[in-house]
Amino acid sequence: MIDNLFTRLEAIYPKMVAFRRDLHMYPEISFQEVNTPRKIADFLTALGIEVKEGVGGRGIVGILKGGKPGKTVALRADFDALPIQDEKNVDYKSQVPGAMHACGHDIHTAALLGVAEVLSGVRDQLQGTIVFIHQFAEELSPGGAKAMIEDGCLDGVDVIYGAHVMSVDPFGTVSVREGYASSAQDDFQIEIIGKGGHGSQPHLTVDPLVVGSQLVLNLQHIVSRRVDPLKSAAVTVGSFISGETTNVIPDSATIKGTVRTFDDDVRDLIEEELKRITTATCDGAGATARIDYVRDAPSMWNDPEEAARVEEMAALVFGEDQVIQMEPMMGSEDFAYYQRAVRGAYFMVGGGNPELDAVYPHHHPKFDVDERSMLMISKTFIATVLNYLFDGNVSPELVETP
Amino acid sequence: MIDNLFTRLEAIYPKMVAFRRDLHMYPEISFQEVNTPRKIADFLTALGIEVKEGVGGRGIVGILKGGKPGKTVALRADFDALPIQDEKNVDYKSQVPGAMHACGHDIHTAALLGVAEVLSGVRDQLQGTIVFIHQFAEELSPGGAKAMIEDGCLDGVDVIYGAHVMSVDPFGTVSVREGYASSAQDDFQIEIIGKGGHGSQPHLTVDPLVVGSQLVLNLQHIVSRRVDPLKSAAVTVGSFISGETTNVIPDSATIKGTVRTFDDDVRDLIEEELKRITTATCDGAGATARIDYVRDAPSMWNDPEEAARVEEMAALVFGEDQVIQMEPMMGSEDFAYYQRAVRGAYFMVGGGNPELDAVYPHHHPKFDVDERSMLMISKTFIATVLNYLFDGNVSPELVETP
Amino acid sequence: MIDNLFTRLEAIYPKMVAFRRDLHMYPEISFQEVNTPRKIADFLTALGIEVKEGVGGRGIVGILKGGKPGKTVALRADFDALPIQDEKNVDYKSQVPGAMHACGHDIHTAALLGVAEVLSGVRDQLQGTIVFIHQFAEELSPGGAKAMIEDGCLDGVDVIYGAHVMSVDPFGTVSVREGYASSAQDDFQIEIIGKGGHGSQPHLTVDPLVVGSQLVLNLQHIVSRRVDPLKSAAVTVGSFISGETTNVIPDSATIKGTVRTFDDDVRDLIEEELKRITTATCDGAGATARIDYVRDAPSMWNDPEEAARVEEMAALVFGEDQVIQMEPMMGSEDFAYYQRAVRGAYFMVGGGNPELDAVYPHHHPKFDVDERSMLMISKTFIATVLNYLFDGNVSPELVETP
Amino acid sequence: MIDNLFTRLEAIYPKMVAFRRDLHMYPEISFQEVNTPRKIADFLTALGIEVKEGVGGRGIVGILKGGKPGKTVALRADFDALPIQDEKNVDYKSQVPGAMHACGHDIHTAALLGVAEVLSGVRDQLQGTIVFIHQFAEELSPGGAKAMIEDGCLDGVDVIYGAHVMSVDPFGTVSVREGYASSAQDDFQIEIIGKGGHGSQPHLTVDPLVVGSQLVLNLQHIVSRRVDPLKSAAVTVGSFISGETTNVIPDSATIKGTVRTFDDDVRDLIEEELKRITTATCDGAGATARIDYVRDAPSMWNDPEEAARVEEMAALVFGEDQVIQMEPMMGSEDFAYYQRAVRGAYFMVGGGNPELDAVYPHHHPKFDVDERSMLMISKTFIATVLNYLFDGNVSPELVETP
Repeated sequence: MIDNLFTRLEAIYPKMVAFRRDLHMYPEISFQEVNTPRKIADFLTALGIEVKEGVGGRGIVGILKGGKPGKTVALRADFDALPIQDEKNVDYKSQVPGAMHACGHDIHTAALLGVAEVLSGVRDQLQGTIVFIHQFAEELSPGGAKAMIEDGCLDGVDVIYGAHVMSVDPFGTVSVREGYASSAQDDFQIEIIGKGGHGSQPHLTVDPLVVGSQLVLNLQHIVSRRVDPLKSAAVTVGSFISGETTNVIPDSATIKGTVRTFDDDVRDLIEEELKRITTATCDGAGATARIDYVRDAPSMWNDPEEAARVEEMAALVFGEDQVIQMEPMMGSEDFAYYQRAVRGAYFMVGGGNPELDAVYPHHHPKFDVDERSMLMISKTFIATVLNYLFDGNVSPELVETP
Repeated sequence: MIDNLFTRLEAIYPKMVAFRRDLHMYPEISFQEVNTPRKIADFLTALGIEVKEGVGGRGIVGILKGGKPGKTVALRADFDALPIQDEKNVDYKSQVPGAMHACGHDIHTAALLGVAEVLSGVRDQLQGTIVFIHQFAEELSPGGAKAMIEDGCLDGVDVIYGAHVMSVDPFGTVSVREGYASSAQDDFQIEIIGKGGHGSQPHLTVDPLVVGSQLVLNLQHIVSRRVDPLKSAAVTVGSFISGETTNVIPDSATIKGTVRTFDDDVRDLIEEELKRITTATCDGAGATARIDYVRDAPSMWNDPEEAARVEEMAALVFGEDQVIQMEPMMGSEDFAYYQRAVRGAYFMVGGGNPELDAVYPHHHPKFDVDERSMLMISKTFIATVLNYLFDGNVSPELVETP
Repeated sequence: MIDNLFTRLEAIYPKMVAFRRDLHMYPEISFQEVNTPRKIADFLTALGIEVKEGVGGRGIVGILKGGKPGKTVALRADFDALPIQDEKNVDYKSQVPGAMHACGHDIHTAALLGVAEVLSGVRDQLQGTIVFIHQFAEELSPGGAKAMIEDGCLDGVDVIYGAHVMSVDPFGTVSVREGYASSAQDDFQIEIIGKGGHGSQPHLTVDPLVVGSQLVLNLQHIVSRRVDPLKSAAVTVGSFISGETTNVIPDSATIKGTVRTFDDDVRDLIEEELKRITTATCDGAGATARIDYVRDAPSMWNDPEEAARVEEMAALVFGEDQVIQMEPMMGSEDFAYYQRAVRGAYFMVGGGNPELDAVYPHHHPKFDVDERSMLMISKTFIATVLNYLFDGNVSPELVETP
Repeated sequence: MIDNLFTRLEAIYPKMVAFRRDLHMYPEISFQEVNTPRKIADFLTALGIEVKEGVGGRGIVGILKGGKPGKTVALRADFDALPIQDEKNVDYKSQVPGAMHACGHDIHTAALLGVAEVLSGVRDQLQGTIVFIHQFAEELSPGGAKAMIEDGCLDGVDVIYGAHVMSVDPFGTVSVREGYASSAQDDFQIEIIGKGGHGSQPHLTVDPLVVGSQLVLNLQHIVSRRVDPLKSAAVTVGSFISGETTNVIPDSATIKGTVRTFDDDVRDLIEEELKRITTATCDGAGATARIDYVRDAPSMWNDPEEAARVEEMAALVFGEDQVIQMEPMMGSEDFAYYQRAVRGAYFMVGGGNPELDAVYPHHHPKFDVDERSMLMISKTFIATVLNYLFDGNVSPELVETP
């Protein structure tokens, strides 16, 4: 079948590792990426792929036109690092104080470049176009996805695929699911403004600490009463800060929290209810509220047909046993924005390997993954792209290519 | 001293008992008093006392002008019965089905008529005027006090005294206190209107039962946070009715309760806060409320000087040991209205006597009291009136009268 | 294909209608079924089907052995009526005061008997066995399913199918879903025992109404904090009864409610948390609780393969447009018990038809359905059974039978 | 009358001012008093008054025996300073960084020494004994009062009087009340230990922030439901600290608060209920609590007869218009301990004077008072002591003393 392409991929694996390690040693955090996109652009240009730079700000888009007309597939990898001090003890440890690829975006980038190199080698046989989207600033909100889409990176694109390496999944696995794959994330901060005074004279005050306590409990009713039991949502208050001492009623209380949802109507409902409940709870005591409600990325919806395609290809390439039905993630990923524009699927590739000390969770100072996960991402991308472009049949012609 | 008058009083005690028992056998409930006021008017008229009938509707006012100029003292007794079936087993048991003097107003009436008879016998020696206020409808709100005052029963009056027999105090005692003697009483009923539905679909409803529960708890904050800790108040929800079955969210919830306060500003504050809290609690859930808030009588304030006068006289007549400093009552008595218009004092006379089976609380179907409590009320009235009219000195002239 | 069998079915449709109308006119409510099972047994016996009576109490089981060896398929129809007064205006209106087939079980029964008649006509060609389970008492808990299973009705059975006519779905549709199809249902009643007293003396009481309000709100935390946001649950308090008047704190409060879940571990968790929260809430105020927690049927799990089979057959017979992906029902159905024992699938058939005034919801006094829904149930049963028995291929031999 | 003594007092006023200013310039905070008690002891010794040093640790007790037998009166002044940086701009500003007489204890001390000087000048005419209690460490709990009593400072004492200058009352006034004059004060800190986790997975946590919110609201019920409405109490939570960020459920929550009561049984009840409610609230969610409950001074009860004596004397000396019925203070004062051992009265003397910039509240960095308040304290002490010792009649003999 496509063994030929995979053989070529494995041949350039050392080059992919080198590229990944270079990124790992010189990470650039979100919205400060300068050298990273340049390196990517250089790599793609060297392959003879058409490159657009500065897309949406700092993004790189490579366009590989096949020899025959066909559909257009986009593949996306993010390339920003995190403001974390690397505490690993390896050769390729970060050389930049306070910056680190602690979420595997270096892996994603190198894996996608591997795909670009392999597919550009057979471009004449391809029917259709492949768009390589190298995205900046996935870690911050609003991230690069939105800006790159607005800048046209999806123009003409029919379908998009994305991947994430996971240190918490064992190396060798591919996880995917149809439908909702990750939640929307909204964060809120509410300042309740009362009127302070002495603890022995509550009648001369508007006690914001009591109002805050009421509010925390009233917010529980959103999930218990206002959201359809058949739909998922979490509303959590993570912080409650009010007052300093035993006998003084403070002037204000501040609570902060997060909201996770899948359905857009549930998301809208919760924002509305949270504001309504906050206002009414304050009204009941004569307090006022300042509500700061910030929406991060929306929920991610894997198109059932495309998710099934990824699943089928992964099973074909790695064996059915290696493919896992993943649970929806209750955290956001800005790949969701692409899927709001075109159909697509997002999947996870295991990177955990105790033998390599790749056991730490994402965003941990000792985070690392088994680098062979790059090959798994690349192979899944290649198989899925070909399956899509050739309408479910991998072109025999392609396979025979030397 | 005034032994002479007390001797006369004791002489007519059988007549007082007869009058009381007649009232007891033919009780008339609030706002339905017809024969009772007529009997009182007849009694007073027979004594040569000027009588006004129909005061404020059904009230009787007797005016006894002394032989010499002086101040004007009012004495008040209420005369309405209760819609309770008498279950006592005595000769003078109520003959009217479903009506009963179960709060001792018959005792008050007969005691005051005894005072009228005794004092009218020495009218020439009296300096000043005595006004006998026989009030209808004390048991219902708004009762007769307000109407009688508006109809002029206190015109020209300088001071007023009132008394209540208490089956729960032992016969022989007189209880009084300076300052607040009974609370104001307000009652409320709140209907929370939500939107019913099936218990498995709370998101399609506005759950009034949950809102009602929130409201009950939010109302706790009135006493705990809004009222000055140095002032007294009780806010109680006595009834919560919502829904019938396990799996249907009802359309509405109804809660009923009572508010007891002493200070007028606390009373006003609580009504305001209760309405504010109710509205806001409903707002938070999208429910609405119908609030029915009814003010019964205000709190009763015993003028310190007049309460001290009653206390001094009672101690003089019955001995210091028999005089009790009573706690403020957390229930209303419409005598309070008179005290809002002129200074005054209200006191309690014990009527409990196990030997007579006078052991049941007020409003009980077997309520009864020791009838000698009438003599104690009459004597306290007489001594207090004379003390007041003669500026603290009981007239020697008066005392010498045969 | 199986047109032959459907032709035969349509031929006996008048007989099915007659049978259904007879049941409709003489309904027997749960646990009081006497004539209904007898009529069913007679019908089956007349077809030469082996009949077991009194299964689990009042159930009827018919066993149709095919001419060739094979697997065993069970089909189930319930036959009990409801204690509702029929208010329809039709010839076949219930003749039994206060009893009515207001949930369509008469339809189910006649539809299943139609299947029995048609399949018994081709018994020689069948490879395998068909078990007709006519179940009593579906409407009450614990219903007939559990008893019939314990009495062996599923012995040797490989798979089971069930159906329900739905007046709220338009006639012509078939609804089915893979996985959870209906929830478990648990009901609870909690009596909170405090200590009553006067509303002005809360300190002498243990206020059960306040404790009840706390409990209602604390129960909200089960869904908002204790249940995995990715899993579904509803905890509803449908009734709160405490106290009668404004100024008396009652002795107790009673709340009633329902719990709906899908996962068994969530169900167990909620029962445990509800009891824990109730006990602790009472402890905090010195009250005590009597908790009555009753588990009705568990959740229903449609085996994905069998649900897919029903869906495929329905699409084949009625057209893809007529097949609907149904939402899980948040109410219980005791068919779930069968599916806990063997794999199976349950589906819905639309019975609503405004032209026939079949527009009322189930359990309504005017409930009715389009009787042609019987044919749809029967056809879906027949196609599914044959598909199962012949391993996905309907036997050509069978189809050619005259 | 006692004009003679007052004349002598006024003569030594400059000496009193000098002594006060010396203390003001060299303040010593609670439990660190070394020079202050030595200065006091020297002053008393110079007057020929018997002095006990180190009473209860750092207290000074002076004993002035009159020439004739009689009762024993104690007078108390506290002498500790506060850890506050003096920000006034006056000659006698504190010379000790971070320490300041910001509550007027220097005034109390100098005023009491003035009394000692005047009365020691007429010791032969006095019938009875006067005990001067100079107390350390009033500002901290447990303060010096308890220790001095345990060390015998009240042995043989019949009655005690104490005074406090108040910058918030206008100079010229004396405030006193019968019965409760200040509340007990208890402080509490509660750590709720739950189990942290991610905000999107509340089911894997025990959310201490929600439990803390429940606790704050449940504590409201102490005052609203458990305390007699006729008795006063305040329960305030002054601080709620839990969590740091939006999306992490914290491990614990800490709340701190204060309790103010008058009646000892209410105080006991509240401690018990607070602990019960805390434990039960945590139990309901599977959290645990560490409760730290600390009792400060008890409530202060002014003996009605002694308070009336102070009031009468103050009215006599300063005029009735200057005497104010004060409200009970909802804060503690360890003079209460003396009044638990012997009868006594505590009163306030106004020290506010805008012309002197004596307008700041107690414990303010610019706190100051009109120093003439010392004369008022001294005169009230002298008149009250003589009134008490001479059984209500100021000795003519005494008055005639030159």
